[in-house]
Amino acid sequence: MISNSHVANANIIEGSGEPRTHILKANSENIRWGNIGKGDAVLTVNSGDIVTVEAITHHSGDDYERMIQGDAGVEDIFHWNESEKTEADRGPGVHIMTGPIAVEGAEPGDVLEVKILDMRLRSNGNGEYAGKTYGSNVAANWGYLYGEMEEEPVTREVVTIYEMDSDGGTDYAKALYSYRWTPQTDPDGNVHPTVDYPGVIVDHTTVKENHNVLKDVRVPVRLHFGTMSVAPKEADIVDSVPPSYYGGNIDDWRVTEGATMYYPVSVPGALLSIGDPHAGQGDSELNGTAIETSVTGDVQVILHKKDNLNNKLKGLNFPLLENENEWVVHGFSYANYLAELGENAQKEIFNQSSLDKAMKDAAHKTKAFLMRGMQLTEDEAYSLMSVTTDFGVTQVVDGNWGGHAVINKKLFGDAEREMTPLRSTFEQFGAQIKWEPATKMVSILYNDNILSATIGETTATFNGETIKLIAPIRLNAQKSAEVSEYFADFYQAKLSKTK
Amino acid sequence: MISNSHVANANIIEGSGEPRTHILKANSENIRWGNIGKGDAVLTVNSGDIVTVEAITHHSGDDYERMIQGDAGVEDIFHWNESEKTEADRGPGVHIMTGPIAVEGAEPGDVLEVKILDMRLRSNGNGEYAGKTYGSNVAANWGYLYGEMEEEPVTREVVTIYEMDSDGGTDYAKALYSYRWTPQTDPDGNVHPTVDYPGVIVDHTTVKENHNVLKDVRVPVRLHFGTMSVAPKEADIVDSVPPSYYGGNIDDWRVTEGATMYYPVSVPGALLSIGDPHAGQGDSELNGTAIETSVTGDVQVILHKKDNLNNKLKGLNFPLLENENEWVVHGFSYANYLAELGENAQKEIFNQSSLDKAMKDAAHKTKAFLMRGMQLTEDEAYSLMSVTTDFGVTQVVDGNWGGHAVINKKLFGDAEREMTPLRSTFEQFGAQIKWEPATKMVSILYNDNILSATIGETTATFNGETIKLIAPIRLNAQKSAEVSEYFADFYQAKLSKTK
Repeated sequence: MISNSHVANANIIEGSGEPRTHILKANSENIRWGNIGKGDAVLTVNSGDIVTVEAITHHSGDDYERMIQGDAGVEDIFHWNESEKTEADRGPGVHIMTGPIAVEGAEPGDVLEVKILDMRLRSNGNGEYAGKTYGSNVAANWGYLYGEMEEEPVTREVVTIYEMDSDGGTDYAKALYSYRWTPQTDPDGNVHPTVDYPGVIVDHTTVKENHNVLKDVRVPVRLHFGTMSVAPKEADIVDSVPPSYYGGNIDDWRVTEGATMYYPVSVPGALLSIGDPHAGQGDSELNGTAIETSVTGDVQVILHKKDNLNNKLKGLNFPLLENENEWVVHGFSYANYLAELGENAQKEIFNQSSLDKAMKDAAHKTKAFLMRGMQLTEDEAYSLMSVTTDFGVTQVVDGNWGGHAVINKKLFGDAEREMTPLRSTFEQFGAQIKWEPATKMVSILYNDNILSATIGETTATFNGETIKLIAPIRLNAQKSAEVSEYFADFYQAKLSKTK
Repeated sequence: MISNSHVANANIIEGSGEPRTHILKANSENIRWGNIGKGDAVLTVNSGDIVTVEAITHHSGDDYERMIQGDAGVEDIFHWNESEKTEADRGPGVHIMTGPIAVEGAEPGDVLEVKILDMRLRSNGNGEYAGKTYGSNVAANWGYLYGEMEEEPVTREVVTIYEMDSDGGTDYAKALYSYRWTPQTDPDGNVHPTVDYPGVIVDHTTVKENHNVLKDVRVPVRLHFGTMSVAPKEADIVDSVPPSYYGGNIDDWRVTEGATMYYPVSVPGALLSIGDPHAGQGDSELNGTAIETSVTGDVQVILHKKDNLNNKLKGLNFPLLENENEWVVHGFSYANYLAELGENAQKEIFNQSSLDKAMKDAAHKTKAFLMRGMQLTEDEAYSLMSVTTDFGVTQVVDGNWGGHAVINKKLFGDAEREMTPLRSTFEQFGAQIKWEPATKMVSILYNDNILSATIGETTATFNGETIKLIAPIRLNAQKSAEVSEYFADFYQAKLSKTK
């Protein structure tokens, strides 16, 4: 694990007893629509604080009844009639971004760590559809095969509505119905022949619902945030669509519960915002969107100061993902398109993308990460990448196309798996530890949460749910239990979360 | 499962009692070096036959002592001195291809199924290194970052030798040493300043071995065949490097034990050849090679006649992979470069490759496969791909670059999971079935092999080794055990294999 994050946790504990918690409700006050960048923060947090963030999908208008109606927060955001438009300022991108959140003391050159502690589907607000959550997938005009379909009309846009259990009782989504997009007229009288403006409410009397769609097919739900971003220094207002060095619309489904993202900070306060929640997406996001749905997440925000960065974070110039088993490096057609493409970068990027460029960027970044982070020579890094690292296609639909490299942590064995004393780490935090010698089981209790693990086993349980450990808890020479730093950091934050 | 393959197995059983088994030893008689295509078969088999294929790496000369010396078959293949060169005809590609194997009755339009039943490392023949197997990774001149390194000389080639347990006792490889390529003189007096000709024996007095390399790093061993191919119709002799519709050097690490490949047959007899074995490779094969080592595999060859193809195989025009959990579609920069690039195709392809083209090909093929194979409409297929299918980078170093799409079978649930009666399926084959009502355990015995599973459990054991089931064995309404067709086909072939 990142030894810095461990230090950061220690600081949190010393400073304030425990991290503060905050809630960012979804409403028109707490979001920006279609852009990220500089501007007033809606919340300021300390390093170590935990924020519950309600993130709303910009595709809610594809089925007003199931995705907006009866949900006060979402109704507020989408409110638009002939006389009023709550969120008048939508664009140049499309995503509803909750935030920005300023981080106390963050300065250019620092690294912001965002741990995703929990993610859950947002229930729909309409009693008629109780117990369900809905999401929309749009085969959009910016999709990868738009205009290249076999059947006529080859340029069609198709919306497919997916249904899920709102409490996550099932782990899959099912397609409910689909319809072909028809020109939609907004309250200002403008006609939208294609999906070209966010938040347009589809008039279902103008479309033909096809309820015979993807019968017997179950899509695994893998909740993730399509867009998490700090603000770039290059521009004040930035289109939320193309991702870049500061994060943004990376659309990697690995940005999920249990994952940590690291972003290079380039403006004071960092200015984190979160949006574009997805219930399912494949690497490539082929037709232009995922299953776009609304999700609430708990994230812990940890600031790493520039003078105190470990090898993995030193010089970080891209959004880096870590989870219990992997490091994931994100490359793009343009590593920093705002700087590389000049004044019209935000328009130009949509004409310049290429997977070939994204792959090259990912390859160079991965080599640099292995050299800097794992202290390998260039020849060692290059050989290891060839024989182990899996390169994939993150997305080919977001202007600045993305390629990623998945680095298996197990390669580095114990060197990468730093252990920390279990009892003192968790007790320092205020948790209660129980030890049953007969079964060799450790239980850690805090805030009505319970985490249990047995010495030597590779799984544990958190509130009854089975979780996988990167390394089993072990007894050291002093017969004290030790746990991997990753495990300690992640579950320490999760236990401390106010429910 | 493919219902045809089930039919094919039934035919085998009716025709000959059980599949015949064959052994293709590695020696100069049984291989072609550097090319695939038409020509005399070294073996002719019936549909259903099982062939043990010894596949030898063309990189054995990178460490003669550890990879050639004392192994009669490999010595025979590599034999080259001033007066004699056993395999004089090497090229235009590089791989040592065992075969070709003709399949009785195979005709253009048929589909050849190749099930990989088992793969194992080949021991080195030198008593000094008993118990070990070695492999070579070369950061080669055709590598993706060649000439773009940070450190001088940026155009260097580096060989890294990896060591493994020859009996697979450990599941990882460790780097043993590396050296920078220096000009090597072959027995004919030609100097090779770079890695430009297959089978050159490196003179270790001319290189400097660095034994301080990748300390504490463990590379997971994932054995696979880099190159399996039927012969194309477009040319008689084809460079073994660029993959294409007929398979060849796909370099997908998923072509491993438990996987099945399907190839469109385009010449009489199909002419299957197998080579380029790898002990580990990441998606992209970034520096130009994998851990290149010698491997022996058992494969079962099943012919599907063109008039009797199921929906998934009908019109198949690319190499398709199936394993217990996935379908994998392979796309290339050029789907059929031999036909598309004209007379000089085999040279031109090395100047024309692009991941953008490979991704586009993979996307179109995946949509077509879902429509044809799963009977989805175009709109259903396109939505499903976006929300579930993971696109990856197969390789960016083989001339005709590759992209692949991984389709999760679980999406299709029971529809894709056809069940077959366990007892009659295996007894028809000559296996003995034991049933213990108390523990609900089924044991299937044949040829000193034993396969055991418990009703309702998702794992089973094969000769004591735990295996994962796509679906648990279940009792049907008649209280008879049923098993997934995939499981039945795969383990039926594996049980019947002569040890």
